[in-house]
Amino acid sequence: MKAIIKSAATIIALLASINLSAQESLWNQAELQSPIVNEDNTVSFQIFAPEAQEVLLIGTWMPREDWAPEPVSLQRDSNGVWSHTTKALASDLYTYHYMVDGLRLCDPLNPYVVRDVSSVFNYLIVPGGQGDLYAVQDVPHGSLSYRWYSSPGTQQERRLTIYTPAGYETSTQSYPVLYLLHGMGGDETAWTTLGRTVEIMDILIARGEAKPMIVVMPNGNMSQQAAPGSAPGVLSAPGMDLPLTMEGTMETTFPEIIEFVEQNYRVNAEKGQRAIAGLSMGGFHSLHISRLHPHTFDYIGLFSPAIYPLAGSIPEIYMNMDDSLGAQKNNGYSLYWIAIGKNDFLFDQVARYRANLSSLGLPFTYIETEGGHTWDLWRNYLSQFVTLLF
Amino acid sequence: MKAIIKSAATIIALLASINLSAQESLWNQAELQSPIVNEDNTVSFQIFAPEAQEVLLIGTWMPREDWAPEPVSLQRDSNGVWSHTTKALASDLYTYHYMVDGLRLCDPLNPYVVRDVSSVFNYLIVPGGQGDLYAVQDVPHGSLSYRWYSSPGTQQERRLTIYTPAGYETSTQSYPVLYLLHGMGGDETAWTTLGRTVEIMDILIARGEAKPMIVVMPNGNMSQQAAPGSAPGVLSAPGMDLPLTMEGTMETTFPEIIEFVEQNYRVNAEKGQRAIAGLSMGGFHSLHISRLHPHTFDYIGLFSPAIYPLAGSIPEIYMNMDDSLGAQKNNGYSLYWIAIGKNDFLFDQVARYRANLSSLGLPFTYIETEGGHTWDLWRNYLSQFVTLLF
Repeated sequence: MKAIIKSAATIIALLASINLSAQESLWNQAELQSPIVNEDNTVSFQIFAPEAQEVLLIGTWMPREDWAPEPVSLQRDSNGVWSHTTKALASDLYTYHYMVDGLRLCDPLNPYVVRDVSSVFNYLIVPGGQGDLYAVQDVPHGSLSYRWYSSPGTQQERRLTIYTPAGYETSTQSYPVLYLLHGMGGDETAWTTLGRTVEIMDILIARGEAKPMIVVMPNGNMSQQAAPGSAPGVLSAPGMDLPLTMEGTMETTFPEIIEFVEQNYRVNAEKGQRAIAGLSMGGFHSLHISRLHPHTFDYIGLFSPAIYPLAGSIPEIYMNMDDSLGAQKNNGYSLYWIAIGKNDFLFDQVARYRANLSSLGLPFTYIETEGGHTWDLWRNYLSQFVTLLF
Repeated sequence: MKAIIKSAATIIALLASINLSAQESLWNQAELQSPIVNEDNTVSFQIFAPEAQEVLLIGTWMPREDWAPEPVSLQRDSNGVWSHTTKALASDLYTYHYMVDGLRLCDPLNPYVVRDVSSVFNYLIVPGGQGDLYAVQDVPHGSLSYRWYSSPGTQQERRLTIYTPAGYETSTQSYPVLYLLHGMGGDETAWTTLGRTVEIMDILIARGEAKPMIVVMPNGNMSQQAAPGSAPGVLSAPGMDLPLTMEGTMETTFPEIIEFVEQNYRVNAEKGQRAIAGLSMGGFHSLHISRLHPHTFDYIGLFSPAIYPLAGSIPEIYMNMDDSLGAQKNNGYSLYWIAIGKNDFLFDQVARYRANLSSLGLPFTYIETEGGHTWDLWRNYLSQFVTLLF
């Protein structure tokens, strides 16, 4: 047993203890790096595409009117490497992808990817400000769990994601709970992947800017047991046109989720220690769940919320909102927080809803920001909202 | 509050409650679908690349000698859609990617991706056999958690992944534990992403073929607090050349992990209820941890293991293995299980190690399969090994 293999061949072979195509691509492109966040907060991109006629870059730092930003065209050097350096960017998390001669692709040099509905994007973080809240920092870390609960109301086993703050497992303390809901096309993974909830919570709790709390992220697509790929069934591209999203089942079955959490975690099971918030459709759910269960939540956060359900016949549950809003007013609450971007297509809906809240005498806090209907706002809204809780 | 917005514009806008570039790509390619697993277990691929000169497909179902399989060239139709249908494939999980005119990319129509070291691959599952173990099935589901533990031996907070079987939270039972270790270039996420551990365990436990057990997946890169992107620091492409992987720290500090698990979970803290297994470098770790802590594990699984450390000066801890193997023999164990593919570059090392075990009188089970040093074998080995435990 004394023979020790030291040859270069063995080292190379051992290095290949992975899918070998990965290794191949690693070596071919070893001299290139992309993206590089430079010290002046410009970001440099490189991609080797010797045969390409045109390489376009599309990123969320680019100004946009309407839906998509105007892509930037990369410059080719004599080796077939295309590159681009942005101007200095504000500290934030950005997603991006390439279009090469009409073909959509992610940056082959950047393994940091995130799925948004049916597409995969790269991401990068520019530090020095808001972006630092989205990067892992050297602070005490909470735990993240994927759990399944029984839902008699949908006759399903359903998955949810739960963040427990650092120290939860070793303390005897009970904690307040934030229920945090995704938008249309999202699922129980959206707030931790696109939304950076774990990083935001770890950091704000460590700074003392947010109270230690549990964050529960359920799946608001009631026809879906779990995120695409995590539920039984064929792996097919996820869509936006799911049934049972804005027809009332989320609102009527939400007590099942609260019950599961309160039976399985050390939580303060009282109104003053419960918050609910969500983005877009999740804001819609938060609005309606909180008014339909008006003794339940003391903190309500609507991030770029939809107010009204989608077209078609309107379920009874979304009619005569004023009565239940009146009950919510009479029961009292600590915070009703609404935030939206000036260019959001839901801006007018929200303006009308604000007017209605005022006419009914329900106090609320209103934050109006630049921007449209995008994740950069929702991460930011979350980082503001959680500092106001409990 | 009775005005309900029903216009098509609102529906379209609501559908866009995501990063809008995602939406754009969703619509442009709505008529295409890829991959399609056909009823006869052939798989069809499509990609729209009107300007491309050559579209190559590289997948793990393709035969390979040496490292990489020979790519398949797709056929272009008059609309610029390139396609290919495989022959019937054995039921399994496969990963793949494209090369378009020298540019590496994932299938833009398939959002199911997995990172292997620094590269991202698509995956698909062909059902009807072994592949069914890797797909989510309608069975009771365990929980998956990402936890952090204190490691005095490395002066770090470190992350690990823990699977607890269905019923863990509601029972009072204590469970046996499998410690499951990744290979070089991997991390604490490798066994659940590439390795499909959650799906395998849920299904085999539901079938009664594996005992309910806890599976602990630590990070074997001792210079690394957590997987790339989950530890503090700049987001840079992960590499294979990490320090502190095969120099002894994993072996000497492993009791920290056991202690964390036994303090935080309801486990049977005894040798007969502990197993350790790993692939490649994780097999190496399992071999050395089990002989250096010879009273600790009753079940040892070496999947395509490295036996000897990498080149350079050999740490003391890897010398004179025979003494500690003798102690392990004298203490006894229930199972010493070794599996390797006939084409694995580590085959000869393992053959010599088997001869040494025989000469020392340590009994072992040996499984020799087709194949090389790849994840399809490791998923399969795991699905065999866990049925033999406890």
